[in-house]
Amino acid sequence: MLTLLQQPLCPLSRFVRLILAEYDIDARLVEERFWERREEFLILNPAGTIPVLIADGIPPVPGAAIIAEFIEETRPVDEGVNGLLPMESGGRVEVRRLASWFNDKFHAEVSGPLVTERVFKRHMTLEQGGGPPDTASLRAARHNIRYHLAYIGWLARSRNWLAGDRLSLADLAAAAHLSSVDYLGDVPWNEDEAARVWYARVKSRPSFRPLLNETLAGIPPAKHYADLDF
Amino acid sequence: MLTLLQQPLCPLSRFVRLILAEYDIDARLVEERFWERREEFLILNPAGTIPVLIADGIPPVPGAAIIAEFIEETRPVDEGVNGLLPMESGGRVEVRRLASWFNDKFHAEVSGPLVTERVFKRHMTLEQGGGPPDTASLRAARHNIRYHLAYIGWLARSRNWLAGDRLSLADLAAAAHLSSVDYLGDVPWNEDEAARVWYARVKSRPSFRPLLNETLAGIPPAKHYADLDF
Repeated sequence: MLTLLQQPLCPLSRFVRLILAEYDIDARLVEERFWERREEFLILNPAGTIPVLIADGIPPVPGAAIIAEFIEETRPVDEGVNGLLPMESGGRVEVRRLASWFNDKFHAEVSGPLVTERVFKRHMTLEQGGGPPDTASLRAARHNIRYHLAYIGWLARSRNWLAGDRLSLADLAAAAHLSSVDYLGDVPWNEDEAARVWYARVKSRPSFRPLLNETLAGIPPAKHYADLDF
Repeated sequence: MLTLLQQPLCPLSRFVRLILAEYDIDARLVEERFWERREEFLILNPAGTIPVLIADGIPPVPGAAIIAEFIEETRPVDEGVNGLLPMESGGRVEVRRLASWFNDKFHAEVSGPLVTERVFKRHMTLEQGGGPPDTASLRAARHNIRYHLAYIGWLARSRNWLAGDRLSLADLAAAAHLSSVDYLGDVPWNEDEAARVWYARVKSRPSFRPLLNETLAGIPPAKHYADLDF
């Protein structure tokens, strides 16, 4: 059985959980307080970041993008199940470009700061970087999300799914990051109808249910968070 | 023919150039002043970053990691040439982990700040983020490189190449980033003999020669930069 070292509201961890759920692969979820920099954890991933996937017979797999490639390359190929990364080169480029857009760019500009400031910092000591949320950082993230939402809306209006005809890693990455931000009530859904409709489609997939049922102690989700008709 | 939009001292661009040279794939190099955010360039890569690889019949390929995967998946397989990404899962994980270590972590902590502050900012207007180098940023990068060099040395002492028995994307990524920093004279080679010996091996490969022969107007390389016996 696989083990995923993760945090419930970490968008990169959620991306991996969605991939595993889409492929119906079981994994044990273990919360890792990566900010504590446990020695045993740093041996598994010297970079000190989550998520990390532990599988038998191979080194620990660190990072959303590398885990996604690993799962794609090793999943049992089932005739009824479409892969989340297309077969042709052009399609692979576009899916990887958009997955990286969300896992790297959106994470740096929006979901990373919001989750760090509003969630992770509560658990950190001052030496670990804890303290009250940095309001300038929150303000920047809430400003930045608007152009990302417009970009998602533009993609959703021109294609069936974000990277093309089929659901792919691009949709799961975008939806994972939005789900963390939406839990915190920071997605201005009224700004882009096409983005909202696309998110409602991803949100209603069975793979999404575990994320919607998750509630953190002391941080209740936004009222509409688990609502499929928001 | 492929086209690579790049900057001569950008370590991520150098990583791609090394891969192409190892596989003996020709590409036209075009300098992109990405900080000018040309409209035509943003159409090719909305993220506004370099490198971007342009190939016929597929969308533009943005970013070092995605370009590396693309080249691996589409290169003509030649019997005499070993791939830079191993075939087995465990090896792929380790190569991708280390390539990301250098392309993401080392870039964020060392090579990105050094090249931005000392090279790119010279060409930028104030609105584009130009101005004199930020000394705090340079100091932090020069401090951070020391633990990275120790990590490279530790890997080089325990393995033949950084990720295992064979030259891989991990070596090219590490060497590409070090080469940019070395051009600027900011690698403290005397701190780790194993790292230095490993770098000398990569540096003496034919794929490295074009990088060593490159000189930027107004920014002469460190004296030992092109020296194979430094």
